Amino acid sequence: MKVLILGAAGVIGQKLGQTLAQRGHLRGETIDAMVLADVVAAKPFDAPFPLESVACDISNPASVAQVIGADVDVIYLLAAVVSSHAEEVLDDGLNINMMGTFHVLQRCRELETAPVVVFSSSNAVYGGEVPDPIIDETFLNPQTSYGTQKAIGELLLNDFSRRGLIDGRGFRLPTISVRPGKPNRAASGFMSSILREPLNGQEAICPVSEEFSHYYLSPRKCVENLIKGTEIPAEDLGENRCMIMPGKQWTIRQVIDAMTAVVGPEPAKLIKWESQPEIERIVTGWRFDFQPQKSLKLGLEADNSFEDNIRYYIEDDQPFA
Amino acid sequence: MKVLILGAAGVIGQKLGQTLAQRGHLRGETIDAMVLADVVAAKPFDAPFPLESVACDISNPASVAQVIGADVDVIYLLAAVVSSHAEEVLDDGLNINMMGTFHVLQRCRELETAPVVVFSSSNAVYGGEVPDPIIDETFLNPQTSYGTQKAIGELLLNDFSRRGLIDGRGFRLPTISVRPGKPNRAASGFMSSILREPLNGQEAICPVSEEFSHYYLSPRKCVENLIKGTEIPAEDLGENRCMIMPGKQWTIRQVIDAMTAVVGPEPAKLIKWESQPEIERIVTGWRFDFQPQKSLKLGLEADNSFEDNIRYYIEDDQPFA
Repeated sequence: MKVLILGAAGVIGQKLGQTLAQRGHLRGETIDAMVLADVVAAKPFDAPFPLESVACDISNPASVAQVIGADVDVIYLLAAVVSSHAEEVLDDGLNINMMGTFHVLQRCRELETAPVVVFSSSNAVYGGEVPDPIIDETFLNPQTSYGTQKAIGELLLNDFSRRGLIDGRGFRLPTISVRPGKPNRAASGFMSSILREPLNGQEAICPVSEEFSHYYLSPRKCVENLIKGTEIPAEDLGENRCMIMPGKQWTIRQVIDAMTAVVGPEPAKLIKWESQPEIERIVTGWRFDFQPQKSLKLGLEADNSFEDNIRYYIEDDQPFA
Repeated sequence: MKVLILGAAGVIGQKLGQTLAQRGHLRGETIDAMVLADVVAAKPFDAPFPLESVACDISNPASVAQVIGADVDVIYLLAAVVSSHAEEVLDDGLNINMMGTFHVLQRCRELETAPVVVFSSSNAVYGGEVPDPIIDETFLNPQTSYGTQKAIGELLLNDFSRRGLIDGRGFRLPTISVRPGKPNRAASGFMSSILREPLNGQEAICPVSEEFSHYYLSPRKCVENLIKGTEIPAEDLGENRCMIMPGKQWTIRQVIDAMTAVVGPEPAKLIKWESQPEIERIVTGWRFDFQPQKSLKLGLEADNSFEDNIRYYIEDDQPFA
């Protein structure tokens, strides 16, 4: 089978491609070709099958048509502009997150091959005046343009699946931590950097109090869940193909204690506590009390402990010291 | 102020225009111009202000730009292809219901005038595996392309309102009965025709049993609610600007008894009972247990009795005998 990853240069896209290459099979079939697509060509890696890395702009239907041919069996639709970007530049969010998703689905429809489409939605689809805990069937009331565009993607994914044009499944991702790489400017950036930078001997700033609670998943488990999600039989998905991906709720104190438990007390001393009211305002508006009943029932999993998140970062991502 | 009705040739669009013309004011201001827009030019009527009737195809951004100028204060976005049409011809639903709504909102954004946009959504946004009763914050899980496209319209309306690009408000309409005019081929058509045709001395077919329960609103109350909805202060709408429009649940037996109570026993004798399994299958899948808490609190109203629905039809719509 042929697998296409849209958004293959992102943290999850890269790890997903490599994990699938090591695994070699999907949905009971041998993977015999993979295409990595992103706005910039993704870094290739060793694979037991032909691997192609191409540039693709999903906001452009012609570009989408070039990468999605009738031979593609499984499409991972991970490409998106992030929350802060979509809030700052509405057109980018509309063109890429909303219309890009639409173009991918329309291309599948045109081909009449009904490929499996695995869509990365986000817990940002939830928000506003809805009660805790957040369950799969909580009203989607996003309070950001990013969340709005992801919720629209879910609706289209469901309708195109109901009509038999694709076999879609969507997963609302928790905040991914520990993310590898450089610090970014997302409001959630500190939730990785207060661990990643100290683990690499560098200082980091924590802009919230140690009681701040949030809902996390490691990159490794996220990739495992996307693969499990690809293999769920269509008939088990029911009348709504989108669901919360499992994560776990931890306080800042708990994630730092987990780091200390794994590597000792020195890294935590590199965290500087500097209140940043604007970041605090944004992130304390986010929901953290999620009950991912459907995905847990279908076999997806959260991390066992935040110590695991720390170990996975060290095993999978820590730069050579 | 200047009012634009998109979808002005439809049953609700026509009545809304005429009611506003008789009323003469909206949101505390005198109406001094009105544009009736539809794919076919709507029939003009007497009005105390200049009335323009124009053809507009909302699926075409250039056509939308021609009717929405910076002088438009209130836009009624009623234009849509109906449920059965959107299910049969997916492109029409996508182009008109989804992209048409998007083009209208994008045009408002371009003008930077933040007009009031009153959007007719539908109870078809609800469906699938969600529990009764249906409340405003029930998960939107549409099981039709029409419902999907209306739910997408709601999300866009909310996000554009949150960003201050429009002042949007959306209302999920119940099934409108008694609809004037000719029988149509919608699955819900009999819910008007079993009353309208007998009231006009003609036979009609009822394809479901007399226990069939559904959620109804008269055209007159629907128009009154749209006008009230236009006048709700933005700050009272909260973080979700879309809500169920009030209606009431009646069985077929109750609506026929209401007709008999108003006009005597003869019309009911013109109803032929012929089971139509395909129509029964569709309409018994529809939800009818709605609790429109938000709109009731904001002053919108259901009909007092179905006898009122019958009287409104006779007063407002019955052809000259």
